Amino acid sequence: MPTTMKSINTIHRCQTIFRSERLGAEICGAHHLFVFSICNNPGSTQEELAKKLYLNKSTVARALASLENGGYVTRKINPNDKRQTLVYPTEKMTAILPKARAVAKAWNALISNGISESELAAFQSVLAKMEENARAVIAGLEDCEK
Amino acid sequence: MPTTMKSINTIHRCQTIFRSERLGAEICGAHHLFVFSICNNPGSTQEELAKKLYLNKSTVARALASLENGGYVTRKINPNDKRQTLVYPTEKMTAILPKARAVAKAWNALISNGISESELAAFQSVLAKMEENARAVIAGLEDCEK
Repeated sequence: MPTTMKSINTIHRCQTIFRSERLGAEICGAHHLFVFSICNNPGSTQEELAKKLYLNKSTVARALASLENGGYVTRKINPNDKRQTLVYPTEKMTAILPKARAVAKAWNALISNGISESELAAFQSVLAKMEENARAVIAGLEDCEK
Repeated sequence: MPTTMKSINTIHRCQTIFRSERLGAEICGAHHLFVFSICNNPGSTQEELAKKLYLNKSTVARALASLENGGYVTRKINPNDKRQTLVYPTEKMTAILPKARAVAKAWNALISNGISESELAAFQSVLAKMEENARAVIAGLEDCEK
């Protein structure tokens, strides 16, 4: 079973290289992750993004500061709760979205090469169960911290 | 299929949180990745580590500088090729290895909860094929750069 996580982590890091190669001219490799989340959920707080992406708050704060400097996001104080910062994509970021989607689709096609539809369906069903387990473990850790 | 990468990336990031929670007192979360590679391959060059881990060279150089400052690795000039730096784990790093292995094992058990052995075997076979495809894509990109 340690092989499972080794493979999962290798596929994850290979995707990061592939995205940087294909999208690097548009947005820095470390920030691709935020394109989908921010464009699909405009007005999220930093805390919501951190929770959704399973990243720590300081990592998200650093990334958002860098994205704001690059003109990819704007951050506004929530008028209903001044302790919160809401994050919105700029046109510069939404312009990247179609290309980011195309790169994601290309990567998925490349890694599925030679795998039949039925194998893939069974695989995705187990993967979904693993993801559910992983989320439950982290939710448990968060409950312990409360 | 985009769901596949979303799940893979979520499981990867959840594992990072879990490792930080269990090993954070011993070594910073961003550096767990290096414990196995450096302990299992003492005397690797920075370039070999970057290639093996699918990370860019500057990320590896920064991490190694931080690990050296923390007393986890020593770096020595290769006597046979003075342009190369060889990386060795210190006792402080090798002391973490058994705990890192136990944490990896615990995580694997947690995410496999409720998945039968036969489902897992079929899953791992497809995952291995995906990993092979991912590595081949990256090898292709590297060939293009030569």
